[in-house]
Amino acid sequence: MPTPPVRALPVRPRRARPAAADAARATLTPETWIEAATEVLVDQGIDHVRVDVLATQLGVTRGSFYWHFRDREELLRRVLQAWRERATEALTRRLESAGHDPREQLRDAASLPFRGRAAAKAARIELAIRAWARRDAMAREAVDEADAARLAHHERILAALGFGAEEARARAFLMYGYEVAESVLHRQGSTAERERRRELVQRLVSQPLAR
Amino acid sequence: MPTPPVRALPVRPRRARPAAADAARATLTPETWIEAATEVLVDQGIDHVRVDVLATQLGVTRGSFYWHFRDREELLRRVLQAWRERATEALTRRLESAGHDPREQLRDAASLPFRGRAAAKAARIELAIRAWARRDAMAREAVDEADAARLAHHERILAALGFGAEEARARAFLMYGYEVAESVLHRQGSTAERERRRELVQRLVSQPLAR
Repeated sequence: MPTPPVRALPVRPRRARPAAADAARATLTPETWIEAATEVLVDQGIDHVRVDVLATQLGVTRGSFYWHFRDREELLRRVLQAWRERATEALTRRLESAGHDPREQLRDAASLPFRGRAAAKAARIELAIRAWARRDAMAREAVDEADAARLAHHERILAALGFGAEEARARAFLMYGYEVAESVLHRQGSTAERERRRELVQRLVSQPLAR
Repeated sequence: MPTPPVRALPVRPRRARPAAADAARATLTPETWIEAATEVLVDQGIDHVRVDVLATQLGVTRGSFYWHFRDREELLRRVLQAWRERATEALTRRLESAGHDPREQLRDAASLPFRGRAAAKAARIELAIRAWARRDAMAREAVDEADAARLAHHERILAALGFGAEEARARAFLMYGYEVAESVLHRQGSTAERERRRELVQRLVSQPLAR
């Protein structure tokens, strides 16, 4: 969301200063800060997500940040919360839209890494959060929770296909691992090749073991 | 490798300064810098890998860095090179030690994420390099190359098991994706559970499709 820069002071500073501050307060919502912080996280890493960097980028004063957040820590907590909400929402939408046939649900899960630009952006955000989670307990907790929720989702599908609890869990891991790998190893294989391996993975994951 | 600090100057600075510089030159090899840089990369991320940070940590002058490297860029290149050499070596060792039975080779590949502390350390380094590769072309190239070499290794095993070229490649991806996922999602499942899913993955990946 582009925001009009509020840096330059008009001719009468004494009147203009509060007006500019009011404008900043009125224009920038907490969501604007959260979105900007997420972008910096993806492009430059967590260490660059700093109040002064974001304020400069958004063209407002450092002080206006504190209208919405107590400190940097709170902003980071909200970045994770926003990511979690989007991830949970996405999972709920999948549960609702895929219908009741577990094979169809499995196909839906397997195609997740291929959903165009929105999926590519979500994958970039997620990878940045995973990198952050390697060094931060709060981020790690958010990532572990999202992983567990998705694994449970896959596990339910595979249990519905008739596999016992433990086998369903192991197959869910393989399936989810495949999705993670498609986003981590995004440059391996052509589009056609990726499409065909998606089909193969789906069949392998849902096929019972021989003997 | 701990290095004696060379910061404090003895009583006669005029004689002591070159002696200290000589000591630093004699004690610190390029490998010491590369290792220290790799540790900072893992613990704090690429932005913290800076000559001044490393010099302070190693207890030597910033200038002594330039006995071994032209600039930071060269150090980073050498960090990647060292990682690539270790990764290639590991792959070669696997090829030699696993014998000629492709099933045994596959078992060997599947057990890779479980090889104790050395593997855990290697995984941490690799994840840090992957995070770096998201923002840097030189790191990305190194990662893509390592991924391609390991995928080719798995593909050869699966081709030896009788799968056609394309199917072998897709199965190799699934297998490698599983290994990547075990290191990215390291907190999902108990040790016993991980062990059993490893067996299941091996069987699924090597089992032909039904019909």
